Amino acid sequence: MSNHVPSTRGQCVEADASDPLGAFRDRFQLPEGVIYLDGNSLGALPKNTLARVGRTITDEWGLGLIRSWNDASWFTKPTDVGDRIAPLVGAASGEVVVADSTSASLFQVLVSALRMRPDRSVVVSERDNFPTDLYMIQGTQELLAGADRDLDRRLIHDDGPSLDEVLADDVSAVVLTHVNYRTGRMYDMAAVAEKVHAAGALVIWDLCHSVGAVPVDLNAADADFAIGCTYKYLNGGPGSPSFLWVPARHQDAARPALTGWQGHAKPFDFTVDYEPAPGITRFRVGTPQLLSLAGLEASLDVWADVDMQAVRTKSLALTDLFIALVETRLAAYDLEIVTPRDHDRRGSQVSLRIDGGYQIMQALIARGVIGDFRAPDLMRFGFTPLYLGYADVWDAVSVLEEILTSGVWQDERFARRGAVS
Amino acid sequence: MSNHVPSTRGQCVEADASDPLGAFRDRFQLPEGVIYLDGNSLGALPKNTLARVGRTITDEWGLGLIRSWNDASWFTKPTDVGDRIAPLVGAASGEVVVADSTSASLFQVLVSALRMRPDRSVVVSERDNFPTDLYMIQGTQELLAGADRDLDRRLIHDDGPSLDEVLADDVSAVVLTHVNYRTGRMYDMAAVAEKVHAAGALVIWDLCHSVGAVPVDLNAADADFAIGCTYKYLNGGPGSPSFLWVPARHQDAARPALTGWQGHAKPFDFTVDYEPAPGITRFRVGTPQLLSLAGLEASLDVWADVDMQAVRTKSLALTDLFIALVETRLAAYDLEIVTPRDHDRRGSQVSLRIDGGYQIMQALIARGVIGDFRAPDLMRFGFTPLYLGYADVWDAVSVLEEILTSGVWQDERFARRGAVS
Repeated sequence: MSNHVPSTRGQCVEADASDPLGAFRDRFQLPEGVIYLDGNSLGALPKNTLARVGRTITDEWGLGLIRSWNDASWFTKPTDVGDRIAPLVGAASGEVVVADSTSASLFQVLVSALRMRPDRSVVVSERDNFPTDLYMIQGTQELLAGADRDLDRRLIHDDGPSLDEVLADDVSAVVLTHVNYRTGRMYDMAAVAEKVHAAGALVIWDLCHSVGAVPVDLNAADADFAIGCTYKYLNGGPGSPSFLWVPARHQDAARPALTGWQGHAKPFDFTVDYEPAPGITRFRVGTPQLLSLAGLEASLDVWADVDMQAVRTKSLALTDLFIALVETRLAAYDLEIVTPRDHDRRGSQVSLRIDGGYQIMQALIARGVIGDFRAPDLMRFGFTPLYLGYADVWDAVSVLEEILTSGVWQDERFARRGAVS
Repeated sequence: MSNHVPSTRGQCVEADASDPLGAFRDRFQLPEGVIYLDGNSLGALPKNTLARVGRTITDEWGLGLIRSWNDASWFTKPTDVGDRIAPLVGAASGEVVVADSTSASLFQVLVSALRMRPDRSVVVSERDNFPTDLYMIQGTQELLAGADRDLDRRLIHDDGPSLDEVLADDVSAVVLTHVNYRTGRMYDMAAVAEKVHAAGALVIWDLCHSVGAVPVDLNAADADFAIGCTYKYLNGGPGSPSFLWVPARHQDAARPALTGWQGHAKPFDFTVDYEPAPGITRFRVGTPQLLSLAGLEASLDVWADVDMQAVRTKSLALTDLFIALVETRLAAYDLEIVTPRDHDRRGSQVSLRIDGGYQIMQALIARGVIGDFRAPDLMRFGFTPLYLGYADVWDAVSVLEEILTSGVWQDERFARRGAVS
């Protein structure tokens, strides 16, 4: 496809026909009549998942029983699957491990970072970060409070203070989400690392809205730690396990907080004292949830065939198209595009601010255009190049236009109740 | 069946025919030619699991997509499923939540307990406890070290010191596994709680080898906290999530260590500051792994029909039978039965100590009798009344007898390599 933004539905159909990623759509199972723009919250189902998880259930568990810990390589799954995620985030083999929830993984790397900066008391994050990161920082600080150092949390914001303003020689770690969950705004990882390191601190990246969405090169960007989720752009399935990354250069110094037996140097010696395993394995905790891990393995079979630069090219084309159509076809409505126009600062979602956004999103969902809403006033639309086409974007905007024009969104049935990620 | 221990294979077959739990065997998928005595490590596969997990994949995820957080009640799953586990451990509704790994759950309740005893510095456990409990205690102590109190770990042992000897006014919490993973020895929960409380400390029970194996009544036993796993006797599937129990009386005072967003009072307000949810929900951390949770839901459908007293009756009959057969038929061999004969002190496994135990277990497994081995010298046999019969026990002992008599276990192919839980 060309760099030219389609301006008719016909041009969108043409762009789909020549889309180098077009064949991937067939590898996903999507319901009829749905345009799915919420893959940034829960990715769509790969067609191979059912068989892969089914095999783990009937063959590995049912027939293999306990023997599958060895025979089906269950025991090394967290690092084996970590190695398959590694190329998607610019990590080396032996630097990624699949773990529990993203929150627990953040705890693991945050404590490691704090231990590497014992004389510093401040953790920097962003006021608009996804709240669990902020809560986990607070919880960690509360846990360590009364220790030999008082820990403080310092939050940056687009309206100030800036990162430059808060960095000082009391900052131990900076925890930032690479692509913001509300706005889709993306950080320049290397530039942030340079600033953070100049202040003597460590940078921890949350890649929840990055992995599978944009190319990430953690080692090239001189990052210190990273975590990410696999159930959004990676299509691992609802609640599929998070991963964490610790570069080889930090692995000896990094001492995880959760000292479970599967991170032990010799787990089957059943010794009384904890001794961390060498390498990334020390970040394992307990027994991995293997059915969920099998779902992730299935989606990584799809991702193994994907060129992330092609994903990025199409992602920008789709978001450019969406922005252009909102600007041209919906100019009459008071829609604010809060996602940066600058490609270098944009992830793979577009967020729109509008009065009545909650109800408008409900009306969209009722018409099969599934995005989501984030309080207080943002409609979010995620763009997943493996299973979304240009005509889908066109049609989604058409539905949005009809809803705004007709005013149907003001109907009682779309009134506010609740919302879930 | 009678209280009489069968003394012929024919009597075993008769006992199976009149077994009130006999019909449950049909609800499990077991491989041909296998006598499975390792359900204490990984429970067998219920026949309904594949369809249940499949429904979560194809319908809830594939068709429902993000909407299933509400429409399929994904968001309340951890407490909904916790409520289904509650009756199996003597918990009330609203006291159990399904969480991440057992190790992570222990961390959550241990930190809560330590916070409730701020002036006490010692955690008591048992030298022969499952190591992850010991490691998590160490990790927690290291995490809080340098705080306003020095934390110490004090370990009891059958050869001393005893619980009575270590309890003192500096003990904050006692972490014990109800049924020991090596020996199958069971504690009297109420008696322990009385001692621990008399010393002003709190008792935390690890129920990994109890839930689904023996009747447990946490509230009647005046316990303070508990954790447990669901992939052993509960048949939740490989690595199925752990659960944790906090009684209503402690829930307001208990402040979890891992302050993730799903334990927040208002998770969808996306506020900057952490505020724990009321009740057991505050012990949630991040997004639950829903495919693994669906596996657990399937097995709980089976357990919903089970009378735990009937399970206990049959469990004792099976272990009595096994012990009697080892004593009578294998009297010529130097086998030590390390599991207590006393019913009140026995869980649902029997462990045998013998020179060459590792190789003997490999020979058993090669013949389809699957138990496991725990270094340095224990062969473990788990007895799961829902899918194991009396004739199975008879036949397992026959195979063991053949292996010991023939000496085939000394064959090179059974030589030591490694072992996995």
